[in-house]
Amino acid sequence: MTPLDPAEYRDIVRRAIQEDLGPGDITTRALVPAEARATAVLLAKSSCVLAGLDVAAHVFAEVDSGIRFDASKRDGDRCASGDAIAQLAGAAASLLIAERTALNFLQHLSGIATLTRRFVDAAAGRIVVLDTRKTIPTLRVLAKHAVRCGGGTNHRVGLFDGILIKDNHIRLAGGIPAAVARMRDLEPGRPIEVEAQSLAEVSEAISAGAEVIMLDNLSDAEMREAIDRIAGQARVEISGGVTLDRLPALAALGADFVSVGALTHSAPAADISLEIALDPDLHGRSAAR
Amino acid sequence: MTPLDPAEYRDIVRRAIQEDLGPGDITTRALVPAEARATAVLLAKSSCVLAGLDVAAHVFAEVDSGIRFDASKRDGDRCASGDAIAQLAGAAASLLIAERTALNFLQHLSGIATLTRRFVDAAAGRIVVLDTRKTIPTLRVLAKHAVRCGGGTNHRVGLFDGILIKDNHIRLAGGIPAAVARMRDLEPGRPIEVEAQSLAEVSEAISAGAEVIMLDNLSDAEMREAIDRIAGQARVEISGGVTLDRLPALAALGADFVSVGALTHSAPAADISLEIALDPDLHGRSAAR
Amino acid sequence: MTPLDPAEYRDIVRRAIQEDLGPGDITTRALVPAEARATAVLLAKSSCVLAGLDVAAHVFAEVDSGIRFDASKRDGDRCASGDAIAQLAGAAASLLIAERTALNFLQHLSGIATLTRRFVDAAAGRIVVLDTRKTIPTLRVLAKHAVRCGGGTNHRVGLFDGILIKDNHIRLAGGIPAAVARMRDLEPGRPIEVEAQSLAEVSEAISAGAEVIMLDNLSDAEMREAIDRIAGQARVEISGGVTLDRLPALAALGADFVSVGALTHSAPAADISLEIALDPDLHGRSAAR
Amino acid sequence: MTPLDPAEYRDIVRRAIQEDLGPGDITTRALVPAEARATAVLLAKSSCVLAGLDVAAHVFAEVDSGIRFDASKRDGDRCASGDAIAQLAGAAASLLIAERTALNFLQHLSGIATLTRRFVDAAAGRIVVLDTRKTIPTLRVLAKHAVRCGGGTNHRVGLFDGILIKDNHIRLAGGIPAAVARMRDLEPGRPIEVEAQSLAEVSEAISAGAEVIMLDNLSDAEMREAIDRIAGQARVEISGGVTLDRLPALAALGADFVSVGALTHSAPAADISLEIALDPDLHGRSAAR
Amino acid sequence: MTPLDPAEYRDIVRRAIQEDLGPGDITTRALVPAEARATAVLLAKSSCVLAGLDVAAHVFAEVDSGIRFDASKRDGDRCASGDAIAQLAGAAASLLIAERTALNFLQHLSGIATLTRRFVDAAAGRIVVLDTRKTIPTLRVLAKHAVRCGGGTNHRVGLFDGILIKDNHIRLAGGIPAAVARMRDLEPGRPIEVEAQSLAEVSEAISAGAEVIMLDNLSDAEMREAIDRIAGQARVEISGGVTLDRLPALAALGADFVSVGALTHSAPAADISLEIALDPDLHGRSAAR
Amino acid sequence: MTPLDPAEYRDIVRRAIQEDLGPGDITTRALVPAEARATAVLLAKSSCVLAGLDVAAHVFAEVDSGIRFDASKRDGDRCASGDAIAQLAGAAASLLIAERTALNFLQHLSGIATLTRRFVDAAAGRIVVLDTRKTIPTLRVLAKHAVRCGGGTNHRVGLFDGILIKDNHIRLAGGIPAAVARMRDLEPGRPIEVEAQSLAEVSEAISAGAEVIMLDNLSDAEMREAIDRIAGQARVEISGGVTLDRLPALAALGADFVSVGALTHSAPAADISLEIALDPDLHGRSAAR
Repeated sequence: MTPLDPAEYRDIVRRAIQEDLGPGDITTRALVPAEARATAVLLAKSSCVLAGLDVAAHVFAEVDSGIRFDASKRDGDRCASGDAIAQLAGAAASLLIAERTALNFLQHLSGIATLTRRFVDAAAGRIVVLDTRKTIPTLRVLAKHAVRCGGGTNHRVGLFDGILIKDNHIRLAGGIPAAVARMRDLEPGRPIEVEAQSLAEVSEAISAGAEVIMLDNLSDAEMREAIDRIAGQARVEISGGVTLDRLPALAALGADFVSVGALTHSAPAADISLEIALDPDLHGRSAAR
Repeated sequence: MTPLDPAEYRDIVRRAIQEDLGPGDITTRALVPAEARATAVLLAKSSCVLAGLDVAAHVFAEVDSGIRFDASKRDGDRCASGDAIAQLAGAAASLLIAERTALNFLQHLSGIATLTRRFVDAAAGRIVVLDTRKTIPTLRVLAKHAVRCGGGTNHRVGLFDGILIKDNHIRLAGGIPAAVARMRDLEPGRPIEVEAQSLAEVSEAISAGAEVIMLDNLSDAEMREAIDRIAGQARVEISGGVTLDRLPALAALGADFVSVGALTHSAPAADISLEIALDPDLHGRSAAR
Repeated sequence: MTPLDPAEYRDIVRRAIQEDLGPGDITTRALVPAEARATAVLLAKSSCVLAGLDVAAHVFAEVDSGIRFDASKRDGDRCASGDAIAQLAGAAASLLIAERTALNFLQHLSGIATLTRRFVDAAAGRIVVLDTRKTIPTLRVLAKHAVRCGGGTNHRVGLFDGILIKDNHIRLAGGIPAAVARMRDLEPGRPIEVEAQSLAEVSEAISAGAEVIMLDNLSDAEMREAIDRIAGQARVEISGGVTLDRLPALAALGADFVSVGALTHSAPAADISLEIALDPDLHGRSAAR
Repeated sequence: MTPLDPAEYRDIVRRAIQEDLGPGDITTRALVPAEARATAVLLAKSSCVLAGLDVAAHVFAEVDSGIRFDASKRDGDRCASGDAIAQLAGAAASLLIAERTALNFLQHLSGIATLTRRFVDAAAGRIVVLDTRKTIPTLRVLAKHAVRCGGGTNHRVGLFDGILIKDNHIRLAGGIPAAVARMRDLEPGRPIEVEAQSLAEVSEAISAGAEVIMLDNLSDAEMREAIDRIAGQARVEISGGVTLDRLPALAALGADFVSVGALTHSAPAADISLEIALDPDLHGRSAAR
Repeated sequence: MTPLDPAEYRDIVRRAIQEDLGPGDITTRALVPAEARATAVLLAKSSCVLAGLDVAAHVFAEVDSGIRFDASKRDGDRCASGDAIAQLAGAAASLLIAERTALNFLQHLSGIATLTRRFVDAAAGRIVVLDTRKTIPTLRVLAKHAVRCGGGTNHRVGLFDGILIKDNHIRLAGGIPAAVARMRDLEPGRPIEVEAQSLAEVSEAISAGAEVIMLDNLSDAEMREAIDRIAGQARVEISGGVTLDRLPALAALGADFVSVGALTHSAPAADISLEIALDPDLHGRSAAR
Repeated sequence: MTPLDPAEYRDIVRRAIQEDLGPGDITTRALVPAEARATAVLLAKSSCVLAGLDVAAHVFAEVDSGIRFDASKRDGDRCASGDAIAQLAGAAASLLIAERTALNFLQHLSGIATLTRRFVDAAAGRIVVLDTRKTIPTLRVLAKHAVRCGGGTNHRVGLFDGILIKDNHIRLAGGIPAAVARMRDLEPGRPIEVEAQSLAEVSEAISAGAEVIMLDNLSDAEMREAIDRIAGQARVEISGGVTLDRLPALAALGADFVSVGALTHSAPAADISLEIALDPDLHGRSAAR
């Protein structure tokens, strides 16, 4: 999996540390000697697909650039319960301060990757699994990366990088033909996706030359008919109420894409922990203080 | 539910809008006339507990201070499927631009409140349900507010506002008595919580005078024995692997608190949508362009 | 011209004011009474196409929300020398503080719009004029808006919202066919643009199914041959060394697009000024201090 | 040329990268293997004066601190077409991501330096060439540095670091003598510059003891007369409508300074490019994937 | 006293509120009903000179734009103990949240103004009292404003807006004449201040044509001799170890300026408080909850 | 003294440098050759307790990561006049640019530590000395650290990490018993501090079970009576008008804590300076330019 550029997560990592650390870790400040050192291992506690390992490493580096972080896995890898993901070493205080924030990123993103992988596996290569804009606010770039780690494919990132003409746009523009024509004029060369909520709209979208037609909450029968009519003249995206259970049936309809909001808005966190081992020499010394 | 101060979410709202809008909404820019106006209603699509309504309102205000937002519900209210939550009116383009970001906040936070309410209801007043620091990074203040909306109680916000002496702190400080004594010295007047992973540690924590003892992953039998030994000399928090199913049994043990990471790291989004209705006059005019 | 959303320029306006005002306007602080009021008119001093009027208005509002700004023109309008663009009224000190920053935005952006309009007029509808990523750093969203105001069309905003496979990408991916295939796999549904530096590469790009082929610094004869070979199977973009003089000849070749870096990296500022008229009553009073 | 302190451009470099990279480079992400390495050379494509080389180097370092950047030129140096400016080496993906942003800074700033040098050469040492506050918003510190690189001299940076009493200040303060007296009182020890739009105002400014008198849009005859009257009692700045053609004549009038807005608001970009050479071994390997 | 432009303190006010409020006021959240309203009066508890009243008002407005703030005093006014400074009215919770941050600004800045006024009064018009760059970090613009409120005069704001050639600069440049000549060349038209630590250096600075000579830690006898030698050819600033006690003697020496670091680094806070009166009706209602 | 985590001061250091450096150090830019190097020593000029040494070191590192900073003292150490605190070496220009900002932090924070130490010494171990929220805005985390360096103890950091029920909260909640009960309900496990302004309120606070009772501006006789009544059922904090002179008498009353606003709002700066020694070889060379 191609790594993210650090420029894409530096600021959010900094804000996350600040949120947890605030004016200082009062427990660690009192109890952990500045010279105490420790090693640690990042462990999968249940099977999962990894995402966010670089982000987690960056949390440790931001708290203390002296922490070593040696990963034995990469984003996109599947882990079984008990697998070691990375070895760490450094100042004990720094490891304790960074631990929860690093895990919060890694568990959330690996949760998305793991759920995505379940949908992609259920699709069995017969339909492409897309994400949506239904992401936890301010974490979208990371969430989209996690979807890729799970084998999913990204729909547009935001309002700025893809055209999607929805029902209200259609009405304001005076119908699908007018909307597509005007859009083509102002944004030549970009593919146009049109949301269709009925077979009549599907036919209009075909005539207007839409590159992608989104079937929004149609019945299975309507979707079958729609895909027949489209007949390869446009790509087809199925949207709305897609669950793991329904995915095999949807995949069989012959559409190109299925988009699933739950990948990014409802994925449970992956179970990953950090096991810290104190340097015994140091522990002895500090105990004797 | 006491509202949050806007100073606590202004920046994250601004970043969330920026993330979605980026260099501009290319669809709306092309198709929605600047003068088009619309009304909209925020609707619960399944039963839920609301959280984040002020944040959602702020998203609309930040995009366009001319949007009216009249709420008929408040944070902490339970909604049935179909309940109207708020009425909106303003420029159609602004409503379309703000819609998804506002919903992303509201659905995520109401998801947390709804899950929390299920735990609190299962506790039936016999044990206090606490959240943890296992939150989605940079959204913690909002997540903690959502927990309160669901009837839950906040544990410490971060490393800065509560003392929690964990296993590594104990070892570095030379045992529970030394750790508590040093902590008391440096932070007089603050309650000290000690994590105990065995009955022996429970006894040490009692002797050291800890105000709260966290029973971390003890068996039910050990927990019963621990609570017997503590006998009101400290408050007791149960932590680790707490599910809705196990909650009634845990509540019966006589502990004061149970902390649940899942409230904030694994709550599925609540199902809430925005139904936009265009001003018909305007629609006619714009269609005729 | 559809206006920009203020969320897209609020921060840069704030930084621009800060840059000019710094720790305070020492001249105005000493000489302008807080109660002095003035009116002003924004005037075109030579013919131009307007861009950035909302940004300029926002500068005044940010300095002092009490300033009135009544525009009689809109972005995209052509102005003759002497045309009044807007009337302003408010505190004299605020007008003096905001003046230069507001003009700097308006003159720079209108300069881009004016130059773009000259290229678009020279194209005479036979070829679409595109901008590039060669913009003044941190002002790209505004520059792209100015290009639209001048009748130009935006190429991708950045690395994130459009695929452009250049020579180095081709070599690293092992040739045009491999590059396009891999790209198609990872970003299904997005148009792929391939840079071709020879007729052989043009043929490869056609076979690979590229949606757009960029002819980069080919001779006129080569471009004619390339467009013949492409024969409508892909859109064609001409790039490199495009001047106003050469544009009519290039437009006659039959390509779809021509991209021009100079629109945004070398446009001279438009000549626009602010004429301030002090309130005579106030002037009398303040003179008598 | 004394280099800028990095504290002066770190933030704008970060914002510029973010603007171009946004949520990620979709082309490079798909096609460039993480392990691919390359070398590159920064080349002048036409004669120019360099400015912004440190800023460009900082762009590369910010994207990837592992990139080597070895400059063979310095800010202020003149380059002929074909001159190598710097050698780079590092990860191919990082070079591709940073390339355009680095060039945008370097071309814009070197454009300013090159134009400034032309004015300074035309002045032939007989008059000092000053810049103005007419700069591209938020880039002023860099623009002023570029002016120095071209041999020009900086006027005040902003409203905060120099006194310039203009016509409206004069009227609000009740005339030139009152304005200068009040200014002197509040800001003792700072030189006072007064704008004079007529010979009468020139005489008033002399009497008031202004250190600098700006002749604003006077005719050549009026300027000659003004300089005669001033006779060394103040320094003289010529302002308004200064072109390269008129500069020799203006320089002969005997004024001290001429200020030129075009240096920073209308300088065309310098022609500089980055030629990237992939590591052949790597290329072979990656092609074989 | 001319007010500061809000653009100069908006960000620091926002950060100050955030610092105190953090993730929320847990006491007010629990105890103050959202509908409770209150009035309040800002009171001087000892005699002082006011500075920062607009900043304090802005704190309240930033917390809650519905708070009314009616000032009966202005920055620069002297207050006796017991004087009312402003009347406030609004939501009780908002007043309680903003109170301490507003007072912290007002007390610190009024402390500076009050101490400055004591120095200015001691100078009795015979010498101008200057501040220095010895300010509390990040509050300099406000501190310099407070000095003006106390009747003091601002020295340069920072390294960017005034030339001060100190001993190390002199040595690196090869002596005072070389330093002044080079400085004059690069920054024509700006006054040059030279630090002199001996009578020999005073003579050099006179010959070099320095506009201001700073006598740094000279004895009174040396200062007398220095001022004799300078004889009006430059202005004279006394610096180093200036106390209120010594000021009358120093003022008698005939120098122009005395600079005092203590004004901004060691001024004790002014004693100002906010007396809040709850709306009795509301109190009754809330008590009955 | 446990050091602060750099995440807690990075941003304020950056803003402080920016504030002083602005668009550049015009004196150093002109006179200090880029290649000139220097050593320096940080010196105590009067006896003091150090605080902020890491922050000062960070200022130098932020300006120029090539500066060496070798400290021979640590935060919390007492210095006599003349003690060397740290040795520095690096580029002369960087040392000159960073000097004042670094000293401003170090002198302010060491001033707080020094004053705190005087109070703590006067308390002679009989009462704990607490700070307050009366800090210079935006510097609170640093100020609280400085208090610890001086041997003081931190009260709550802000509104978010400690409960303090003041007079207005009491009235709005309907009396002390109701306020404490409601607070206990919403924030179980946190100690509750109640402000008492009379003996009657003291008795109410005892009955309500407050963990800490703040005696606010009671007479000495009232305080004695209050402490008698409390008799160990709560801890006691004395607040209001505490001076060094009164401290021994207050310490004898038997209270647990005394809180002193002056520690952070009125501490005079410590006298610390940086003595820079230029590299003689370099000096010779640069003098010869």
